[in-house]
Amino acid sequence: MPLVAVIPNPNAAVEMREIVSPTLELNSALLEVELSEVCGTDVYLQQGRLEGVPYPLIPGHVSVGHLRKIRGEMLDVDGRTFKEGDRVTFLDVHRTCNACWYCLVARASTRCPHRKVYGITYGLADGLCGGWSQEIYLKPGTRCIRLDATPEQFMAGGCALPTALHAVERAEVKIGDVVLVLGSGPVGINAIIMAWMSGASRVLCIGAPQARLDSALKAGAAAVLNIETTDEQQRLSWVLEQTSGRGADVTIEATGAPVAVAQAMRFTRDAGRVVIVGQYTDHGPMPESAAFNPHLDLNKKHLDVRGCWGSDFSHFYRAAQIVSEPARSGPWSTMQLARYDLSQANEALEDVAAGRVLKALIDPRGVAA
Amino acid sequence: MPLVAVIPNPNAAVEMREIVSPTLELNSALLEVELSEVCGTDVYLQQGRLEGVPYPLIPGHVSVGHLRKIRGEMLDVDGRTFKEGDRVTFLDVHRTCNACWYCLVARASTRCPHRKVYGITYGLADGLCGGWSQEIYLKPGTRCIRLDATPEQFMAGGCALPTALHAVERAEVKIGDVVLVLGSGPVGINAIIMAWMSGASRVLCIGAPQARLDSALKAGAAAVLNIETTDEQQRLSWVLEQTSGRGADVTIEATGAPVAVAQAMRFTRDAGRVVIVGQYTDHGPMPESAAFNPHLDLNKKHLDVRGCWGSDFSHFYRAAQIVSEPARSGPWSTMQLARYDLSQANEALEDVAAGRVLKALIDPRGVAA
Amino acid sequence: MPLVAVIPNPNAAVEMREIVSPTLELNSALLEVELSEVCGTDVYLQQGRLEGVPYPLIPGHVSVGHLRKIRGEMLDVDGRTFKEGDRVTFLDVHRTCNACWYCLVARASTRCPHRKVYGITYGLADGLCGGWSQEIYLKPGTRCIRLDATPEQFMAGGCALPTALHAVERAEVKIGDVVLVLGSGPVGINAIIMAWMSGASRVLCIGAPQARLDSALKAGAAAVLNIETTDEQQRLSWVLEQTSGRGADVTIEATGAPVAVAQAMRFTRDAGRVVIVGQYTDHGPMPESAAFNPHLDLNKKHLDVRGCWGSDFSHFYRAAQIVSEPARSGPWSTMQLARYDLSQANEALEDVAAGRVLKALIDPRGVAA
Amino acid sequence: MPLVAVIPNPNAAVEMREIVSPTLELNSALLEVELSEVCGTDVYLQQGRLEGVPYPLIPGHVSVGHLRKIRGEMLDVDGRTFKEGDRVTFLDVHRTCNACWYCLVARASTRCPHRKVYGITYGLADGLCGGWSQEIYLKPGTRCIRLDATPEQFMAGGCALPTALHAVERAEVKIGDVVLVLGSGPVGINAIIMAWMSGASRVLCIGAPQARLDSALKAGAAAVLNIETTDEQQRLSWVLEQTSGRGADVTIEATGAPVAVAQAMRFTRDAGRVVIVGQYTDHGPMPESAAFNPHLDLNKKHLDVRGCWGSDFSHFYRAAQIVSEPARSGPWSTMQLARYDLSQANEALEDVAAGRVLKALIDPRGVAA
Repeated sequence: MPLVAVIPNPNAAVEMREIVSPTLELNSALLEVELSEVCGTDVYLQQGRLEGVPYPLIPGHVSVGHLRKIRGEMLDVDGRTFKEGDRVTFLDVHRTCNACWYCLVARASTRCPHRKVYGITYGLADGLCGGWSQEIYLKPGTRCIRLDATPEQFMAGGCALPTALHAVERAEVKIGDVVLVLGSGPVGINAIIMAWMSGASRVLCIGAPQARLDSALKAGAAAVLNIETTDEQQRLSWVLEQTSGRGADVTIEATGAPVAVAQAMRFTRDAGRVVIVGQYTDHGPMPESAAFNPHLDLNKKHLDVRGCWGSDFSHFYRAAQIVSEPARSGPWSTMQLARYDLSQANEALEDVAAGRVLKALIDPRGVAA
Repeated sequence: MPLVAVIPNPNAAVEMREIVSPTLELNSALLEVELSEVCGTDVYLQQGRLEGVPYPLIPGHVSVGHLRKIRGEMLDVDGRTFKEGDRVTFLDVHRTCNACWYCLVARASTRCPHRKVYGITYGLADGLCGGWSQEIYLKPGTRCIRLDATPEQFMAGGCALPTALHAVERAEVKIGDVVLVLGSGPVGINAIIMAWMSGASRVLCIGAPQARLDSALKAGAAAVLNIETTDEQQRLSWVLEQTSGRGADVTIEATGAPVAVAQAMRFTRDAGRVVIVGQYTDHGPMPESAAFNPHLDLNKKHLDVRGCWGSDFSHFYRAAQIVSEPARSGPWSTMQLARYDLSQANEALEDVAAGRVLKALIDPRGVAA
Repeated sequence: MPLVAVIPNPNAAVEMREIVSPTLELNSALLEVELSEVCGTDVYLQQGRLEGVPYPLIPGHVSVGHLRKIRGEMLDVDGRTFKEGDRVTFLDVHRTCNACWYCLVARASTRCPHRKVYGITYGLADGLCGGWSQEIYLKPGTRCIRLDATPEQFMAGGCALPTALHAVERAEVKIGDVVLVLGSGPVGINAIIMAWMSGASRVLCIGAPQARLDSALKAGAAAVLNIETTDEQQRLSWVLEQTSGRGADVTIEATGAPVAVAQAMRFTRDAGRVVIVGQYTDHGPMPESAAFNPHLDLNKKHLDVRGCWGSDFSHFYRAAQIVSEPARSGPWSTMQLARYDLSQANEALEDVAAGRVLKALIDPRGVAA
Repeated sequence: MPLVAVIPNPNAAVEMREIVSPTLELNSALLEVELSEVCGTDVYLQQGRLEGVPYPLIPGHVSVGHLRKIRGEMLDVDGRTFKEGDRVTFLDVHRTCNACWYCLVARASTRCPHRKVYGITYGLADGLCGGWSQEIYLKPGTRCIRLDATPEQFMAGGCALPTALHAVERAEVKIGDVVLVLGSGPVGINAIIMAWMSGASRVLCIGAPQARLDSALKAGAAAVLNIETTDEQQRLSWVLEQTSGRGADVTIEATGAPVAVAQAMRFTRDAGRVVIVGQYTDHGPMPESAAFNPHLDLNKKHLDVRGCWGSDFSHFYRAAQIVSEPARSGPWSTMQLARYDLSQANEALEDVAAGRVLKALIDPRGVAA
């Protein structure tokens, strides 16, 4: 019986449990987990800040492991069959309906109301549907991706990488652009990597704390600024100095703080692009102190402001390809990872919430029941 | 000596003056004005709400007339020479530098800091550089457009038409989209026409007063709602009813009210597009009551919000082409025009400011000095 | 037992048969056909010019009718259930896999190798899977669209409309563009309507015979040219005359003739767009007489040439919406339709092949077995 | 009196001459040349294969040097004045009219019929208007770019870099794409660098001779194939092997051979993008052996084929920025350069024509008259 870590209720501590391994349906599989992830969303889950979550649940949406048992046939997108023992990962959003107006007419599947997400929309009652577990049940229809990268390399990107890839793709970075990233958490760091990979001449980052800014520099940022020691005016001056007085061509907001949205607009040059990817939870409306001026900050600037929600299979697949390509994987190889076993999940959540670690991983191997 | 109408100072009444007709430079011309325009920008000019305006000035940025005198050669974009007597119009922004970073690198000429605009950036000291005049001096380099439409047809669109064309182009309307236009002034009405012409299955309009909403219906709106008799919640309900509960595919904000910006976002479906084209003057930041929520209104909605500033020669040229095409000109033929002579400019400004007329035109002919 | 019309083998005459009505699977339905279609693809099917077709088969890919029997639940894209008696249509490509690289990574579902198409990829052995029949079996997962238009109005567009909508969408028509359509068959005529609906200032058409060019004019073309009485040079001259000597901004090729591809490029202005949507069958390589010059026809012209294959649910859905919108349906209301009963299918094929009719419809009602 | 190298007539050998240094107009300057370039276009110029060239002329369109004398004011795009001694470069297409339909309405300035190009559209009678010279006369309005890179670094990119940047920009490379470059001359090599910089997971190159393929590998290609030892079928097989059997996501044709155009289409996956940038001279129509099949190669493939002509200030400016950025300049630092003095221009042309050198530079310093 596999061991799992469970959030029993909002604001309750994570507990370990044993649950029965499922009987496999046709064309499903069981994944033996090597690494799963603790990200900001998991902190929100534990704090009860996401709507419609069926507690108790097993968190862990992006994971890597070996296919331990397959019943029937599991295929990759090229139609090749997987065999037991293969190392794979899979998109946590394993099912969109391909039948609703958002999927079929708007072609905006990240807004499909019927999305099914491992580690978020499934409860413990649904079985092994989260990555903080020794095993995950890969339901029929789940499209696995064969992984050539090491588990560590891939998880260094983790769920932040496809999110950042989506955001940077939406930013339409042009060769030679100066890209400003607000925020130095996992999405911010991966956005730096993606912006550089898209042809930016320089990537700037404003964030905190200093340890994360050091990671930003290692990830390829040309210059960084600490938000803890500067006010908005100083940040604006710094950005203008770095950009011939014009502001960034592209700004990627990846902070989680509502005030950052108006700042992102002000830090961007006229006719530039702003992608908002850091507002994943409702922190209420923008505070009056950040009050944004539709004339000065948007209309007269002829600005493009683009919200960016989730990621789809395409982003995830390309993220896995890029990380697996030796000539591309450098930035993730050097990223600092903090490893926790299943029994240390509460500690991991605390470290992530406090920003003490950049990337926390759950390694469920070698824990006896 | 041609008669002109002049705003002497911010908040001062318009006065009539006579000024000396200029000596033409090489490749310049004198335009005998048939019709010029009184738009919202002129109201702002009179109220001193635009920065850097060299008072006293002759207002009137978009105008139509006959080439009365040409010195040297005036060419159209196809390289054909104009001759005296030709009926033409011209883009008020007659000069962008084609030499700065915004013109050459960003290709965002509407943000060129060296734009020269008839009726706005020129003062009386610069001569006949506004349309509220019997004559306009067309400086060398001004690209005229031969006009096949009647002056009334073209001026029914006036400066609002290229602005609306630009906004709707930026909205990337797809065939079958439901487009919502906020505002029923000249830009709003022209946005309705442009959205319909771009393939919308239905165009909705929220505005006021009723007379303008009637114009909206005549211009092609499928349904209208009066902002004076509804609150934000009622408007949202109405939009959802009209759109299978999803919101508009595209919303064009053309109101002038900061509160409309957040509403535009809320009235739009997830993954839709919002164009902000109505915030042409600084009314201060968005009020707290309208405070927008970065998570709910932007990021989670995966929304595109696009500021839209000014228009360039391409928009103006295509506007003139469309209005001149008999099979296309219908909507402008029926638009109600209010005509004023030069001595009635103050009355025209008041009527526009009060929303009593949809489109006010200055007709400087037949006024004796 | 419903009557069907069957192509037994390539180049064999269509025969009528009776086949057993199926037992419905869960969430499937039986459609009582009002009208189905005879299009160019059916001619090719009868001539054996499409690969991988499982003869014998029931042709008829786009159809309209009433839901006669539903087992379980049939939903539309808004999640509303259909009831028996509802008038509906459905995309013939009722299934793409949503699991392969083309569906998931390239997001190019019209190139999904697992597409299932009513009237084309199904054989008689698969049951009632074509529209030349009194009944069609709507398999589980088929997304029906409720139809507010009359069957005649919708079928006037038929399969040509979503194809044309896709082509014109890919052409990115801008307000004021001059659009040239090559070909005056159903796709060409619908491309004229779509191009006009997308904001073209004028739509030109080169085609034949004269009867179809008359339809082109009725559909909104501003000017037409008969291909039977002109050579390439004369056509080019005509296009240049109509376009200030530059060529069309956009050309939609919808002819079926390989030589038209190079002509489409030459008839288009520099930096314009060409969409190739008429090359649906292999007529061999471009003949030497049409030999295209990569320097003059493509590279120096800075041209965009875009192949356009098939259409997806989005195109089909929006086509149905547009046709159902009273203010939009005009062009299809006046289109000339030729109606045939099931026993006249061979005659219909001949008339279509000979270009004697613009749009041929099979009406399977009122034919006794 | 500065020394210049002149092509007196088509097919005549280059000759050295001395010409009088010009009297500077207001806001013009004299550039002391450090390096100029010998590219494929110069070979065509010498062979008389370009139309409308005013022989005799001084070739050399892209050059680097010091501002030796300034009369009046020379400004960069940020409005900063240059001073004598500054190292600069400038776009050879120093003037587009900003007044014609292509410049103003189509916004396609590379198709402006009034382009003025140093080293191509100017004859000897126009003075020092080519780079194979000790001095170049920078006419009023020429926008110089301050150069932080070394002359060698910048000229390693030379005119091929902005061309390649334009081509790759038009290809819309997405992160993770496999990009295939056809051709391993200067444009091909720079396209490899640009494609990699745009996020390709792997860049492939098919070209010749081996020395250039070695340069391709050094520039970042993951794999190369020699065109001299393979036929079309073998090349196709190789591409399919490298791309999971699908073909490249993006192909950049930079060969100069008409047959490569159809091959580029066949080597690309369905729904992919092809940019044609190598057909700069008229080699006549595509030969019958290469005859392309509109159904198989374009329409059914749902392919985008994009001609790409010239480059504008934006491409040139961003090229200069990228080369000057230390973290980006690596690929150009290692590129092999062949240096010739003014008297060796004929030898340089021969070496370029024969493909014996990748990049040939004229260094006019240190040659006594």
